[in-house]
Amino acid sequence: MIVVLKKNASPERLKSLVSWLETKGVSVHSSVGEAHTILGLVGDTSALDIDLISALDIVEDVKRVQEPYKNANRKFHPEDTVVPVGNTRVGGGSLTLIAGPCSVESEEQVVGIARAVKAAGATMLRGGAFKPRTSPYSFQGLGARGLDFLKSARAETGLPIVTEIMDIGQLSLFADVDLIQVGARNMQNFDLLKALGRQEKPVLLKRGLSATYEEWLMSAEYVMAGGNENVILCERGIRTFETYTRNTQDLAAVPVLKKLSHLPVIIDPSHASGRSWLVPPMATAAVAAGADGLIVEVHNDPEHALCDGAQSLRPEEFAALAPRLCALHGFLAAGGETK
Amino acid sequence: MIVVLKKNASPERLKSLVSWLETKGVSVHSSVGEAHTILGLVGDTSALDIDLISALDIVEDVKRVQEPYKNANRKFHPEDTVVPVGNTRVGGGSLTLIAGPCSVESEEQVVGIARAVKAAGATMLRGGAFKPRTSPYSFQGLGARGLDFLKSARAETGLPIVTEIMDIGQLSLFADVDLIQVGARNMQNFDLLKALGRQEKPVLLKRGLSATYEEWLMSAEYVMAGGNENVILCERGIRTFETYTRNTQDLAAVPVLKKLSHLPVIIDPSHASGRSWLVPPMATAAVAAGADGLIVEVHNDPEHALCDGAQSLRPEEFAALAPRLCALHGFLAAGGETK
Amino acid sequence: MIVVLKKNASPERLKSLVSWLETKGVSVHSSVGEAHTILGLVGDTSALDIDLISALDIVEDVKRVQEPYKNANRKFHPEDTVVPVGNTRVGGGSLTLIAGPCSVESEEQVVGIARAVKAAGATMLRGGAFKPRTSPYSFQGLGARGLDFLKSARAETGLPIVTEIMDIGQLSLFADVDLIQVGARNMQNFDLLKALGRQEKPVLLKRGLSATYEEWLMSAEYVMAGGNENVILCERGIRTFETYTRNTQDLAAVPVLKKLSHLPVIIDPSHASGRSWLVPPMATAAVAAGADGLIVEVHNDPEHALCDGAQSLRPEEFAALAPRLCALHGFLAAGGETK
Amino acid sequence: MIVVLKKNASPERLKSLVSWLETKGVSVHSSVGEAHTILGLVGDTSALDIDLISALDIVEDVKRVQEPYKNANRKFHPEDTVVPVGNTRVGGGSLTLIAGPCSVESEEQVVGIARAVKAAGATMLRGGAFKPRTSPYSFQGLGARGLDFLKSARAETGLPIVTEIMDIGQLSLFADVDLIQVGARNMQNFDLLKALGRQEKPVLLKRGLSATYEEWLMSAEYVMAGGNENVILCERGIRTFETYTRNTQDLAAVPVLKKLSHLPVIIDPSHASGRSWLVPPMATAAVAAGADGLIVEVHNDPEHALCDGAQSLRPEEFAALAPRLCALHGFLAAGGETK
Repeated sequence: MIVVLKKNASPERLKSLVSWLETKGVSVHSSVGEAHTILGLVGDTSALDIDLISALDIVEDVKRVQEPYKNANRKFHPEDTVVPVGNTRVGGGSLTLIAGPCSVESEEQVVGIARAVKAAGATMLRGGAFKPRTSPYSFQGLGARGLDFLKSARAETGLPIVTEIMDIGQLSLFADVDLIQVGARNMQNFDLLKALGRQEKPVLLKRGLSATYEEWLMSAEYVMAGGNENVILCERGIRTFETYTRNTQDLAAVPVLKKLSHLPVIIDPSHASGRSWLVPPMATAAVAAGADGLIVEVHNDPEHALCDGAQSLRPEEFAALAPRLCALHGFLAAGGETK
Repeated sequence: MIVVLKKNASPERLKSLVSWLETKGVSVHSSVGEAHTILGLVGDTSALDIDLISALDIVEDVKRVQEPYKNANRKFHPEDTVVPVGNTRVGGGSLTLIAGPCSVESEEQVVGIARAVKAAGATMLRGGAFKPRTSPYSFQGLGARGLDFLKSARAETGLPIVTEIMDIGQLSLFADVDLIQVGARNMQNFDLLKALGRQEKPVLLKRGLSATYEEWLMSAEYVMAGGNENVILCERGIRTFETYTRNTQDLAAVPVLKKLSHLPVIIDPSHASGRSWLVPPMATAAVAAGADGLIVEVHNDPEHALCDGAQSLRPEEFAALAPRLCALHGFLAAGGETK
Repeated sequence: MIVVLKKNASPERLKSLVSWLETKGVSVHSSVGEAHTILGLVGDTSALDIDLISALDIVEDVKRVQEPYKNANRKFHPEDTVVPVGNTRVGGGSLTLIAGPCSVESEEQVVGIARAVKAAGATMLRGGAFKPRTSPYSFQGLGARGLDFLKSARAETGLPIVTEIMDIGQLSLFADVDLIQVGARNMQNFDLLKALGRQEKPVLLKRGLSATYEEWLMSAEYVMAGGNENVILCERGIRTFETYTRNTQDLAAVPVLKKLSHLPVIIDPSHASGRSWLVPPMATAAVAAGADGLIVEVHNDPEHALCDGAQSLRPEEFAALAPRLCALHGFLAAGGETK
Repeated sequence: MIVVLKKNASPERLKSLVSWLETKGVSVHSSVGEAHTILGLVGDTSALDIDLISALDIVEDVKRVQEPYKNANRKFHPEDTVVPVGNTRVGGGSLTLIAGPCSVESEEQVVGIARAVKAAGATMLRGGAFKPRTSPYSFQGLGARGLDFLKSARAETGLPIVTEIMDIGQLSLFADVDLIQVGARNMQNFDLLKALGRQEKPVLLKRGLSATYEEWLMSAEYVMAGGNENVILCERGIRTFETYTRNTQDLAAVPVLKKLSHLPVIIDPSHASGRSWLVPPMATAAVAAGADGLIVEVHNDPEHALCDGAQSLRPEEFAALAPRLCALHGFLAAGGETK
């Protein structure tokens, strides 16, 4: 961390600042220049409050040099992390295709969709049992019963299951879930993140609606700091001024996060766009950007879905899309050259 | 709700849509115009999924007419709600002044600050025991011990106390807190909101960092739908492109929310600005905009505060500010006229 | 346009409103329902001020049904527009590759880069002669002399040239430019747009930094309403809270704009990302999303470029990228199937 | 400016960087620490391209210490600037009240409104003759004829007039206007700003819809660098996710800009809120925040206004508001104390 002092900083105040910084466990190297005195702080600066230091009367400016995350940082973990989920693995050059309904509505529904998406090439089944809804009057999900239906679908198809947790109190119900999803609205529910760090199931961490990459990685860091290194990052669109799409998919997240971190990155084009006809082109673009996988909503009857029907593909649409995504992934992995 | 159909909508599809809408409990009035057929949906439309209807192939556009919140809606509750908090009341023409440290650090600290802010005119004491921090390596608060120190300060000064809850599991610890705060990052932690709706303590609901008024009122609705009508809304700045201030205070929230809702609205200028010298002018502007109160960070030693020192007033600064705010409130309540 | 009246609207006020609307040239169909009276306005509603109508005391809500743009609207022009630019054509299934330096710095520089990018597969040359810079103290471009150097490069290579206009007064200098660029900051410089509509050169219209699709298309409409239908839309990133990238590339703009409009859509990954290493993955994703082309910054010596060196590819990097983009475009055009 | 080098920076590359920086006219002080080598650049760094330096392969990070604006900077001009406009002065402790219609529609209209607002206490008349409208099909203003009507109103009332310029070509028509307004959409029309810097009329510079304080001040700097120091800054709301209000008024702009700069700051509550009933509370809050003045839309017949009627006060509403604003301004100037 670099601290630039004001020109008129008194030597006494400077000495006092350096002493205080040293009590925080960092060593301080000062460089007195013509225009400014600059302090270089060396050591573990991740716990220093940059806003507090900025507010000191002798400080002109402060700049963090080191990223504030460690476990999620590729600098300290150069190899790609590959996350095992049930009988499949996410990352490491493979293309994960997660598909399924927004909400679990019945056993018949979810088993039927699971069969269809498996046949089309999906490698994991998604489905919401606990649903975060803006309105208390909207359908809130089937809860524990929904989890049971997902497990039935897994038993029928062999597909690992991923579903969203909304509160620590639900954790015991998730013991037999393969991948635990943290939704965008809970990305900074720090107590939930800590609890997920203390257990062993892998975590699918969605980006908050207006979160920066650094905030998102800090949330991954909460899970990893607890000992659980199996975190998958999922971009699901950010809030912008554009209202035609539900959110704006930020595909640059793929190459950027893969540079900053070793964690796998997948894309959710369904929630980002909010319109099913946008899912195929955006899924295609996501594969081209280098995503490790996709999570796509598929519903057998979108018009009667209990939530988010507008963005769900029909099974036959997914069946048309999935092999094209795999072909593109193969084409690019082979060097993207024409022969 | 108004549904505009596409020009080429077939009569069979229209009939099927009307039947389906009627199964949702609304009655449908159709109006066939030259250019468009328009359906007017009457009844309780709050549970209809506007995105789903928009996605139907025969639908051109959908427009919600009724606000999706009821308990928080001034239309159905024209009188201002006044929320009792300990020995004070929020709303109804009074000016609530909540002050105290960002984090509780020691009993001595919080009791000392409580005495100082009470002497200056504060009517409630704030202080964080459970702290939502972006980094897992930052100070996370004293927890239950911090709550005890707040209660000591209350015993010493008589000031009611407000502090933040971060997880349902902490609820039993909050039984003797006067006002339970829900932070910006938890504004859409729906399970927490539901739990707060099932208990009796009043709730201070902060606006999410990029939440709209409607989303914020829907979160209040979650609490109120559970039976707890004592909700106070708190604007604490929204995220914008401006980086000079920590967030951008949206003072229009005061007159707008007081028109849309009957709930009291208070302003947090400390978190919004992130700089202590901005607190006095923004607090003054908030009173002028008609706010029911302010929540201000005060710390006896901001440079050594364990969090957010940059935005804390010193006790003597608060002592200079508070009577000016009260004088302005009195001036405006008296008609704002010069004599 | 649909106007929903308040429940208590008096018949006199309603009659007065209808008369006033009819003077605006629209016909009004009213539908009296139980809960609300609804007016359907038929005819050319593009000139009605939706905010003004919303503010009338008897109006509950107003909803525009028809898009406010006509010439740019695919509904009235179902075929893709193909824009001729010099000896090439943009749109219609081809992949346009525009490359060149951010700023023209010397004849030698721009001719050298033009040769390199042509050899690599570029179909057009870009280069800034008039530069919009945030600071008045930054390099403002070579002006007319820069245009001459671009023309030299065209004479040497045959590549059509595209460069930015900043003011109507420069228009006479652009008579021999092949494609006139309007920058993001001038997207709503309406007088400039009108002037470009009155001349014949095709226009490359960049999206404003926080413009919606509709605002962008309305700016295209300004040009087209003057008689010039040769407009190419260029997404160059929008401003979001993410600061790691310079802007956030919105690739959904490609499929959305191609649905709403018949105009070609190209992508600028250089300005969007602000980092040269992000250009290849984002360019690849743009092709996969269906873009009609790319505009990429290429500089022979990015470290000494007079502006935006950080985001420029070196010629050899562009030479590696361009054939891969063409191969991907061919792969997808052929159906994206593996054999 | 502070440049932090990567750990593995080679001495040769470092030497080459230092030489290059020195050719840019700055002197370089290097400080070799354990973890990082840090360069402090002294001199006029305003023309250095921070993005370019950041992109160099040996550079870890760059931080600007000095603000990039000089003429607008309070550090170099500690006294408040007071801008003379016709027979009045803006800044320096006075409260400027600018009122008038959004668009000039007729001589009778603007003269009538001018008389009414003068009687109520306005010190300047506003009115648009050239109108920036999103749609080419909307009313574009009366142009030169509108300017004549404004001058008639000035002749009748003595009020100085302020009106918006949209293009350099209109400048000769503005020779007899008292204050030239640059609209939000033209805040970065740099050629227009330069032209205004070369003439003598004072300039009212509105903040762009998503501009930061620094970008806004850099636009002021464009005008001032040309020799015209009479710039007034006007906050008119920024674009946020909130859609209930047209934009979000950022009142923190008042104390922040008055700290960073010596230029007067006024507030436009009409455009920011887009709803006339929000103008009085927001105008009151603006005065409390310390604004040097307000610019308010007043129309004798808002329902029939040719633009922005929704946000216009009626003359009698302005007549009720203006004296209350003056009384509040007086109360606060006197110390805001109750007697």
